[in-house]
Parts: sequence; C-alpha cells; structure tokens
Amino acid sequence: MIGKLIEEIKKKGAPIVVGLDPNLVFIPEYIQKAAFRESGETLEGAAGAVLAFNQEIIDAVYDLVPAVKPQIAMYEQFGVPGLLAYQKTIEYAHKRGLIVIADVKRGDIGSTSEAYARAHLGRISIGKKTLPVFDADFATVNPYLGTDGVKPFIDTCMENDKGIFILVKTSNPSSGEFQDQKIGDATLYQKVADKVEEWGKPSVETRYSEVGAVVGATYPEMGNELRKRMPHTFILVPGYGAQGATGADLKGFFDENGEGAIINSSRGIIAAYRKKEYEKYGERNFADAARAAVLDMRYDIRTALMS
Amino acid sequence: MIGKLIEEIKKKGAPIVVGLDPNLVFIPEYIQKAAFRESGETLEGAAGAVLAFNQEIIDAVYDLVPAVKPQIAMYEQFGVPGLLAYQKTIEYAHKRGLIVIADVKRGDIGSTSEAYARAHLGRISIGKKTLPVFDADFATVNPYLGTDGVKPFIDTCMENDKGIFILVKTSNPSSGEFQDQKIGDATLYQKVADKVEEWGKPSVETRYSEVGAVVGATYPEMGNELRKRMPHTFILVPGYGAQGATGADLKGFFDENGEGAIINSSRGIIAAYRKKEYEKYGERNFADAARAAVLDMRYDIRTALMS
Repeated sequence: MIGKLIEEIKKKGAPIVVGLDPNLVFIPEYIQKAAFRESGETLEGAAGAVLAFNQEIIDAVYDLVPAVKPQIAMYEQFGVPGLLAYQKTIEYAHKRGLIVIADVKRGDIGSTSEAYARAHLGRISIGKKTLPVFDADFATVNPYLGTDGVKPFIDTCMENDKGIFILVKTSNPSSGEFQDQKIGDATLYQKVADKVEEWGKPSVETRYSEVGAVVGATYPEMGNELRKRMPHTFILVPGYGAQGATGADLKGFFDENGEGAIINSSRGIIAAYRKKEYEKYGERNFADAARAAVLDMRYDIRTALMS
Repeated sequence: MIGKLIEEIKKKGAPIVVGLDPNLVFIPEYIQKAAFRESGETLEGAAGAVLAFNQEIIDAVYDLVPAVKPQIAMYEQFGVPGLLAYQKTIEYAHKRGLIVIADVKRGDIGSTSEAYARAHLGRISIGKKTLPVFDADFATVNPYLGTDGVKPFIDTCMENDKGIFILVKTSNPSSGEFQDQKIGDATLYQKVADKVEEWGKPSVETRYSEVGAVVGATYPEMGNELRKRMPHTFILVPGYGAQGATGADLKGFFDENGEGAIINSSRGIIAAYRKKEYEKYGERNFADAARAAVLDMRYDIRTALMS
C-alpha cells in the first residue's frame, strides 16, 4: 500500500493528507440543524451532521490530495451511530479514489492486536465467510507494548496489502515526557525508531516499507534526525497548522527527492472557514474554504521543499 | 468510582474481574448457529452470538464478582454491529449491578483524548442535550503521549465519578522491550509508575486514587515492587490463567490488608468449558463452567493471600 500512497502523492503533486476530525464545533450550524431536524439532538443526529460535513469536504478536496485521515476518537464520541458515520466516511473516501489512513492509535497484547488489525485493516472469519470490517488502507499504531503488540498489524498488512504508521515522536507538548527520555546513548523515541526501521525491513519495496512512523511537525529538528535514522520508513507528519508548525518546519521530514513524508492538517483545513484568512467564504461555503486552505498548504509545502 | 470498586470487592469477597473477550472461537457452536440463522454469517450474526454469549456469562457470575472487563478490540473486529454488542454488554452488566472496566487502551494528543474520554467515561454535548455514550465506569489508558494525553481522562473521571487504569507494565512477553529500558536510575515503567502516582494525588480518597495502573500478573516481582512504589495506586492485573500466571504470583500485587488490586481472567473463565478440568460441563453448560472457574480462581487467590 505504501507504493500506492507514494504514487498518488506524485500524481496529485501534494504530500498532503486531510484530517477528518469533525468535532461538532467545526461543523456549520445549518448542517447540524438539518441533521437534528431529521434525527433529533441525539447521537444519530450528531453522526448525520458529521457524515454530511465529511462528504462535502471530501468532494471539495479529493482531486487535490491523495489521502484523508479520519481520527476515530471524533466518531467514537458519538457512540455506535458515530462509528457508522466513520465507516461511511471511509466508504465515501474510497469511492472518491482516496487512500484512507485510520488514525486509531491501537496497540495491545498479541491476540488483542490481532483483533484490532482485523477490524481496521484485515478481514474477519464468520462461519464460512471472510468479510472486511472498517477496511482502511493504513492505521496508526501505539508501540508501548513492544514487538508482539505490533507484529499482528504487520502480518495483516502483508496479507492484505495495507500499511501502518507507528507512533515514534508525537506532536503534542508533553510528548517528550517519556519519548525523549535517555536510554543509554539514545532516547526512547530513537529506540522506537530503530525498531520501526527493523520491523519494516521485510516489506521494503523500492525504498520505503509498509511500516511507517508518526513524527510530529512540531519537532522539526527531530524530524530531520529521524528522516536519516529511518531511511526506509515513510513518515506521517501531524501538527501542521492548528498545532503550530509551518511549511518551513517540514523540509527535514522529506528525503533528498522531496519524498518519504506526508503532512496532515485537520482543523486547519476542515475548519478553515472559521479562520480570519478564509472568513470571506462564510459557513455555507466551508468546503470551498477547505479547498482554498489545501491549495495554500500545497503552496507552502512546495515552497519549503524548493528552498 | 475507585471507592465503589473497593467496596464491591469486599462485599463479594473476590478481587476478580471477568474479562469479556468473546472471540468467536470461544463461543459454543450452537450459539453461533442460532445467531447465524437469525442474521446470517455476517457482522450482525457474529455480534448477536457475542451478546447472547456475554449475557449468559454475566448471568452466571454476577453474584460472585464485582466487575467485568470487556476488551473492545474483540467487538471492534465485528465492526459497527460488534460495537453495538459492546454497548449492550455494558448495559446488561450494569443492569446486573456489575462495575464495567472498558479495556480500550486509548491515548492521543489532548483534544483527541478528550473525545475518547467523552466516548468511554463522559458525556457528549449535542445541541442543547448532554448525553452519555458508552458510559463504562473505568477505562484503560496508554501513557506513551505523556501528561497532556492522559489529563483529559483524569478530568473526565473527576467530573463524572469514574476511574482509569494506565498501562505501566503490560503482561505480554515483549512488554520489556521499551518498558524495561533503563532511564537514569529507573526503568521506563517505573517512570510511568511515578507519573501515575503523581497524576492520582488529587483524587486519593481514603487510600487509593481514581488513577490506577495496569501491571501484568506475568511479572510478579515487578508487581511486588510497583505495589510499594505506587502506594496510592490501585492495580488492575491481567495475565492470570491463560497468559500463564497463577495465584502464587499474585500476593505481591496486594497491600498489607489484601487490598489494592483486582485480578483479571478472560479466556480462563469464559472459555473454561474448553479446558480439560471443566470439560464435564460440555459446551451447552459453558456458563456453569465459567462459574466454576470463577470459584476456583477465588479459592486460588484467597489461598495465595493467606499464605
């Protein structure tokens, strides 16, 4: 699947993934009201608003970007109806030719990680049938439990032509609390990075493996260092935009060909209409504002890569 | 909520939580067939089998134990219908007076952890309404992202009288890969343990706080050491039974009053009917076998605590 992601990034000329994190506060009131008229102020009503919102965003950006990244927490908060909207969002994105990165950050003991891997990337056997479940293309994985918590995801990737991104250095302010701790001559995140590179070895295609890493745009020097430390590891980079990172912070995440990384923006795109620079669009044209924000982000990244 | 858990453990005389991890392979064929007749060999069919199975297990053990721990991965693998069975399992357990520990191992950046906390322990605002979602009593949390990934769970606990258990030293074979790494004069899991103790301080009631820890029964010396290192931290102990730990391994997880810990067994109880010692029950009486396994486990733990 990493080969397909690299190809789609090239085709669209944009190493950009749009984060679909539809908290209700980002969804224009007229969409919420329409959904509430249909299903009430209920979990179903909220899920209806989320799905309608996502579909318009996807319609507005699908020709510009290779992928979307739904953050499952934003759906889980609306319970079972929310997770149905999550499933339908994945289906709709696939229909529009987009690659889907499921931001689920799962990870558990082996037999449990197997179940998570089936849920998000694989297939489940029921009686004599074998069925896909959420069927995303990539999933994010938490490494705290070590190899046997990660291995089932990798096995599932190999069987189903899927990929994963493992948390190495996350974008949040306190990510250093454990991740930056020094273990001998390396930090914890460097130790995890070395494992990610090792776990990926068997699936390296031309250059990159199916086992990618998450490294936050908010830590550009570490991104630069990790790019070199993990030469076969594709990097998913959150933290651009709303979390504070800018184009200038990104160059080091890419390899010498300007490849090897994909940058996520969530709120910065889907809630662009609420920002001063895009307010002229108004909430009715939130999707156009999202498209404009993608174009600006693309320009910002291209400029950074050419500098 | 930790006060209620401690009280229920005393009332029932059993520091035992039954893990509801219903992989299809543990569910008797006659239950699967009945569910498939109703809904086909589909996600709905599998979810129907899971719920029917769980309800019988709950009916057979609710008077013996204070709590159940559904592992959400085992439901997520059946997609949206599976998550509906998860929700109904929580509701059914509550109806039977059981405390529910949601084994979700969530953890993300702050705003995302907020959404997970709402989903599993809190309430969500939709229009003018504020609604519960999955509404478990406790949830497990992954600490890899540090304080700002954990804090929203703690805030939600304080607002809603709930609790969490943070992964400190997990029960799986490769848990040491990162968790046992030496950082200065402490290991990573000890550093996490110190944070858990610190995070819990504001919510200590009489002795224990709403911020518990997960420490695997498969590492008894570390359990013993962590019991002393985290004097105000209640410990959830997985790994008994199917993962290899026995009663003799457990004593060190408890405090001097035989309190401060609860032991989980999943497969060892719910799939007891498949084990040689309980095979006389047969698959039709799987729930009686589960009850017998709980009684044996209770005896095993009491013996260990008295030794």
